[in-house]
Amino acid sequence: MNDPEILDRIRIVLSHPSHPGNVGAAARAMKTMGLSRLYLVNPPPDADDVAGARAANARDVLDHAVVCGTLEAALGGTVFAAAMTARRREMAPPPQWAREAAPQIAAAAVHGPVALVFGNETAGLSNEEVALCRLPVVIPADPAYSSLNLASAVQVMCYELRLAALDPGAPRAPAHPPATAEEIRRFYAHLEAAVTHSGFLDPAHPKRLMPRLRRLFDRIGLERDEISLLRGMLKTFMPPGSKVD
Amino acid sequence: MNDPEILDRIRIVLSHPSHPGNVGAAARAMKTMGLSRLYLVNPPPDADDVAGARAANARDVLDHAVVCGTLEAALGGTVFAAAMTARRREMAPPPQWAREAAPQIAAAAVHGPVALVFGNETAGLSNEEVALCRLPVVIPADPAYSSLNLASAVQVMCYELRLAALDPGAPRAPAHPPATAEEIRRFYAHLEAAVTHSGFLDPAHPKRLMPRLRRLFDRIGLERDEISLLRGMLKTFMPPGSKVD
Repeated sequence: MNDPEILDRIRIVLSHPSHPGNVGAAARAMKTMGLSRLYLVNPPPDADDVAGARAANARDVLDHAVVCGTLEAALGGTVFAAAMTARRREMAPPPQWAREAAPQIAAAAVHGPVALVFGNETAGLSNEEVALCRLPVVIPADPAYSSLNLASAVQVMCYELRLAALDPGAPRAPAHPPATAEEIRRFYAHLEAAVTHSGFLDPAHPKRLMPRLRRLFDRIGLERDEISLLRGMLKTFMPPGSKVD
Repeated sequence: MNDPEILDRIRIVLSHPSHPGNVGAAARAMKTMGLSRLYLVNPPPDADDVAGARAANARDVLDHAVVCGTLEAALGGTVFAAAMTARRREMAPPPQWAREAAPQIAAAAVHGPVALVFGNETAGLSNEEVALCRLPVVIPADPAYSSLNLASAVQVMCYELRLAALDPGAPRAPAHPPATAEEIRRFYAHLEAAVTHSGFLDPAHPKRLMPRLRRLFDRIGLERDEISLLRGMLKTFMPPGSKVD
């Protein structure tokens, strides 16, 4: 999948968050990953604009947040909802790991708005709230201390959703043109001449010197300009006028 | 790889963090993913224990943090270091995405302590700091707003490292031990001495010769034996008895 509009169809729902700072930090976390639809179920009052400060330049996400009285209202119009949970719930399907869940959430968003729901910092989501969602999702944390900060959990999930929606697929093209096979052959010939001249390589007893050097330089993925650089250097290691290739 | 001890060999280094709250939140982010080695380069004073409050139950990670005066000191004893960067750096290798980088960092940790370095909240890492690390790493954020909170970036990377360290499907560690940061530093000093002696590098007009050579050799992932091979070769390019390091 490679569809930026997917991210625009994913709601991040914070149900009963306690700390305005976390709400602002969640808005920032969303925006860094290209998400903007924030829904708040019964959020805390924020007299001192702590949320705004933590949102930094994601203030717009915060300002456009949709405030709801119930989770049902926040899920209105969605075609799919997933619930973050730190533990296995009785009667619910086993939670999926974030990395497996993200592509499913992104795939569902092809068909319409979807939601990913985060619970209160201390109590998490109630069983009733989890039951309103189709998929329980867990971030695989250390069982000895699995308490991610709310905004940190939002950051990890939005990161996974961004990668799922924009799956980079093929690696990006290198910025610099790679050396051709012929250029690389000539470089190795030049290197061999230089180490032979310097006495590092004894042609009568070559051992595994050139294969070892090739194994090393082959790993670089040499660019055309770099071949020129290396051959320019080798030239200065040899007597002036030495003939190479 | 499936080795919980890997996580114990990964240092999270915060260089010149500005806000005690972010330091505490980073400690918490680390602990949720099973990491505990926090290094702080020139951290801010924290008179009001803001850091402690944000660390929550990761107070132990904060209390055991190693405070250093320089990044070099924080990298002491490491066999590999990666640098978080939000942008492409001139002369540095292209940054790898977090997901590609994490298995490499985890694999290097098989051989000894490794470091993942985060820069200041506003300024990021300096080019000099990035140059002390072998691998630049980027979290693929929205180009329109790529400013992750520091602790959020630590959370995402520790999450990736945890999955890499505990993922049985991740690539296995290399068979040969990698060179240490100190061995690599000495190799570059030797290389610089050799090209200065040969006249390839003019100390009065160094241009960008050494950065270009470093960019090239940094990509190899040099092994310890290979450093010996290269330095043995360099020795034969210089007059007998030349003193290097």
